Amino acid sequence: MTKPKNLTAEALEELKPMKNGELLDTKVTIDTVKYEQPPEKHWILRRLYFLNWLKTYDRETAIADLIAGITLGLTIIPQSIAYAALAGLSSEYGLYSAIIGKVFYALFGTIPQVSIGPTSLMSLMVLQFVGERPMQFVVVLAFLAGLVELLMGVFQLGFVVNFIPTPVTKAFTSATAVIVAAVQFKNLLGLKGKGVPSIGELFKRIHYSDAILGLICLVVLLLLRQLAHINFKKNTPNTRRLKKFLWYVSISRNALVVFICSTITYFWVKNRSLEAIPYTLTAKVTSAQLTFSLPPFAFDYKNTTLVFTDIIHELGAGIAVVPIVAILANVAIAKAFVKDNRLDASQEMLTLGICNIAGSFFNCMPTCGAFTRSAVSQASGVRTPLSGIYTAILVYLALSVLTPYFGYIPRSSIAALLIIAVVFMIDFSPIKELWRTNKKDFFSWVGCFIVCLAAGVEVGLLFGIVLNMIFVLLRLGNPKVEVTLMECENRNYIFVSPTSDVYYSGVEYIRDKINDACLLYRDDFPVVLDCRRFMQFDATFVDVISAVAKELRERDVLLVLFGISEESQQLMHKSENINYCEGDRICSDDLSPKKQ
Amino acid sequence: MTKPKNLTAEALEELKPMKNGELLDTKVTIDTVKYEQPPEKHWILRRLYFLNWLKTYDRETAIADLIAGITLGLTIIPQSIAYAALAGLSSEYGLYSAIIGKVFYALFGTIPQVSIGPTSLMSLMVLQFVGERPMQFVVVLAFLAGLVELLMGVFQLGFVVNFIPTPVTKAFTSATAVIVAAVQFKNLLGLKGKGVPSIGELFKRIHYSDAILGLICLVVLLLLRQLAHINFKKNTPNTRRLKKFLWYVSISRNALVVFICSTITYFWVKNRSLEAIPYTLTAKVTSAQLTFSLPPFAFDYKNTTLVFTDIIHELGAGIAVVPIVAILANVAIAKAFVKDNRLDASQEMLTLGICNIAGSFFNCMPTCGAFTRSAVSQASGVRTPLSGIYTAILVYLALSVLTPYFGYIPRSSIAALLIIAVVFMIDFSPIKELWRTNKKDFFSWVGCFIVCLAAGVEVGLLFGIVLNMIFVLLRLGNPKVEVTLMECENRNYIFVSPTSDVYYSGVEYIRDKINDACLLYRDDFPVVLDCRRFMQFDATFVDVISAVAKELRERDVLLVLFGISEESQQLMHKSENINYCEGDRICSDDLSPKKQ
Repeated sequence: MTKPKNLTAEALEELKPMKNGELLDTKVTIDTVKYEQPPEKHWILRRLYFLNWLKTYDRETAIADLIAGITLGLTIIPQSIAYAALAGLSSEYGLYSAIIGKVFYALFGTIPQVSIGPTSLMSLMVLQFVGERPMQFVVVLAFLAGLVELLMGVFQLGFVVNFIPTPVTKAFTSATAVIVAAVQFKNLLGLKGKGVPSIGELFKRIHYSDAILGLICLVVLLLLRQLAHINFKKNTPNTRRLKKFLWYVSISRNALVVFICSTITYFWVKNRSLEAIPYTLTAKVTSAQLTFSLPPFAFDYKNTTLVFTDIIHELGAGIAVVPIVAILANVAIAKAFVKDNRLDASQEMLTLGICNIAGSFFNCMPTCGAFTRSAVSQASGVRTPLSGIYTAILVYLALSVLTPYFGYIPRSSIAALLIIAVVFMIDFSPIKELWRTNKKDFFSWVGCFIVCLAAGVEVGLLFGIVLNMIFVLLRLGNPKVEVTLMECENRNYIFVSPTSDVYYSGVEYIRDKINDACLLYRDDFPVVLDCRRFMQFDATFVDVISAVAKELRERDVLLVLFGISEESQQLMHKSENINYCEGDRICSDDLSPKKQ
Repeated sequence: MTKPKNLTAEALEELKPMKNGELLDTKVTIDTVKYEQPPEKHWILRRLYFLNWLKTYDRETAIADLIAGITLGLTIIPQSIAYAALAGLSSEYGLYSAIIGKVFYALFGTIPQVSIGPTSLMSLMVLQFVGERPMQFVVVLAFLAGLVELLMGVFQLGFVVNFIPTPVTKAFTSATAVIVAAVQFKNLLGLKGKGVPSIGELFKRIHYSDAILGLICLVVLLLLRQLAHINFKKNTPNTRRLKKFLWYVSISRNALVVFICSTITYFWVKNRSLEAIPYTLTAKVTSAQLTFSLPPFAFDYKNTTLVFTDIIHELGAGIAVVPIVAILANVAIAKAFVKDNRLDASQEMLTLGICNIAGSFFNCMPTCGAFTRSAVSQASGVRTPLSGIYTAILVYLALSVLTPYFGYIPRSSIAALLIIAVVFMIDFSPIKELWRTNKKDFFSWVGCFIVCLAAGVEVGLLFGIVLNMIFVLLRLGNPKVEVTLMECENRNYIFVSPTSDVYYSGVEYIRDKINDACLLYRDDFPVVLDCRRFMQFDATFVDVISAVAKELRERDVLLVLFGISEESQQLMHKSENINYCEGDRICSDDLSPKKQ
């Protein structure tokens, strides 16, 4: 299936690889100066990535980023408070983390949509590895996780991203969107109590004021979303201006809806009282000051002073698990949002590391990219990561001068915003398409999707990656082998030729093929093994081939290895029934045992 | 390195695969009847493996098996008692497990050295997954583990054995031997107390009577071991008979030494008293009856009746972990002892499953092959698995009529026996050799060895397997690609041709190569991508190639895919800048955009 087998000798000749440059000298007359290796992008531009954005930063980009930044600010503030609470921390730590994450990602990050800050995943990790222990452990964990992430970036481990196949990215994206939508739908309806309600129960548990406000927001957001797509029949300067205005209204829809809801709440409270508000508000922001200090590398805990090594011992596996989970989630989100699949994953790891290390100097919790925020940024027309600076300013203001005003955001308006942002990312179309085109991809998608829903998105992602690795490994265990009876100068030989690359796991399979061939031809002819597709002349290869030679000697069959370099011949055990075909082609001499 | 690059067109022509049989019809005059596919081995012979042994079972084989069987019996009895105690069970359960394992392995097993029975690994597993719960859980665990093993055998999952590379098998063997030798050295010296003693402490903690007896046994065993290698100058019937006698003495050395030590002890006790024995004896055997009964699929526990599903729920992950650990250990041991690396791993899985399921009908604990026992069998010249029947009979006698006599075996004589059996399997020579020949293999050996010692042999084995898989996967992420400027009918094109197989993880790398080539040649020429080495035309391939086509279109460069079947062409997105080279060779027409 993978290659046309009926290549003519002529075609093979045509396709014979020519040495690079050879043709340039003889047949092709090309100005060689013109085709010198172009200079690489300067490393500063690759590392301080914001310099790339700054060069072309104009008014229009700035406005788009500002709108997206403010919208994201309105989302990230209640989110950060909630995630800090989930990790067992007080609200200000979540907001600190949001500010530091946004500022440093703006400097080093490459993908406009990615938003580093508190996430549910990191909160659960903190809960698991720090638990009831004091805040200092969280900060040191952020520092160490950041260090590991930074090192992974420095050692250019970004290629791991290539091991996330497209169906897995798609399934991860859809599953995360489903989970977010489900959770936020609960907030939208203001459901009381825990667990999934039955249909009958549902109506009893709905908080009707929340639900009505949420549904109104939902409808308004959907209508505003369509504004950008209105087309006018005439194309005059006026309609163009109107179209632009409508586009701005459309991408500011999230910020607008939250702002209007909060303003109504504010005046309602002013005229009546806080208790008079019929719907639920998001958690209150407490005023706090962002302060710089060294991470607590030694502190008192349970009447003893813990030094750095003690803290490392206490955090245990968390030091490895937290950065790996953070990087996997971050890279998967980045892959879901990046334009044209082109991702500098090493730079993303580096940036994530910097965000976390920097965060540990400002009392932050471990952070990574959040799927919901990326979806909101995307929906709000973000252009560059510099948009994060505007978000950071807004969060900073919320912590200092604007603190009281951030207490009036209705929870169901945020829920409506998040649902609309993620719901269009749910895409079940791959199920049908992949079933038709590739069963392996189909099972990757379905498996990853189900595991994401059942056991958490990070487990699902890992499952998808490992499943695909196993598919490849299984395939390597069964290399394709062609066994042909060949003739050369009136002498016959059995030519055993793998037609796909052979790694250590496939050598045993080749051995079976050789034995089958000898059995079929009743040990009458010598066996020539084509070694050109063996990728590793390692101990496994040497051992198995030596064993084959021994078996064949017992049956008086000659084994000839073809296409094996002299260097690799040195590795083989000497005393065996192994002959080498020294030339480029097999000739009659090769088919008789050599005198040693 | 892996293939000669300078193949001439003639050589390629010579090597061009011919259809199987084609030559038989035309050039080669061969009696076609002679070369019909030979009949496959009958499935009964492959499954009821003892039939293979029985066919050629003669007196000499029987004597060798009997000696090995008795020797193994003397080893397995104290071992089974110890491992049952380790799992928190009373001694008879260990002996039941030994009998059933030996009998059923003799019927179905393929490797003479492998000995199914209680092992330290399985005891630790029982401790972990059953803990303080009653015996019934252990029996059901044995049943379920056996079922999983049986199913893995039925579904022919034996190929997993190909994923254990030779260096990992070797490191696992040496590490296990080191651990066994160290533990038994402690028994040999009769060390009191726990933990590794310092040199000074050592002499205080030695039990001198144990140590002296043990060292004497050690020296005697080493001397007897050499008997088999004595050569006589003359070759008369007498010397031949003497040589044979010495050989029998040599392979019975383990049984002999234990028998002599026990006899001395027996008469000592008879003349004085049990307390007068200055050295430590192995644990006493209690007389018991092997009875057949259904595994307890429902029983009372903590005042409630547990049904089958409840028991499954209680055992949890153990149902998967126990069989996987058992199979990995079993297969690694089998691989270490099998002749010429030829292992029917599926049959081994099947057999292990049968042993455990059968065991659960006789109140047995979960069993698998033990490294120590394999080494003892090997040292005692075992010939076929039927030897296990003799062992089983001896163990049965120990449980019934011979019970009192098995209380007189000195512990240090067994320790000496085990040390000599495993110490010759410790082999550090791969370290130097692998460093010279293959760094990947070197790190596999060293890594696996260290992890085996530090974290247990099952973890070390898994580490070695996964490490090698990662090596292969990393290599697949960086396929070799040749980029050449080619000419065809006075038109130039860039020919991008992978020279190793490309899986999903390598597609992104090819994309980088295409972009680099376009950058070098300033987008002047069309790009022809050779797809013949792409192993999977899956969603990842389609997505990345579509993205490449889009990028190239923006830069006005034509992308032509060569060597892709029409079937696979259907999978590609339609609207992209993708052209196909329909023929077997690239011609001028292919280098211009096609009219759609």
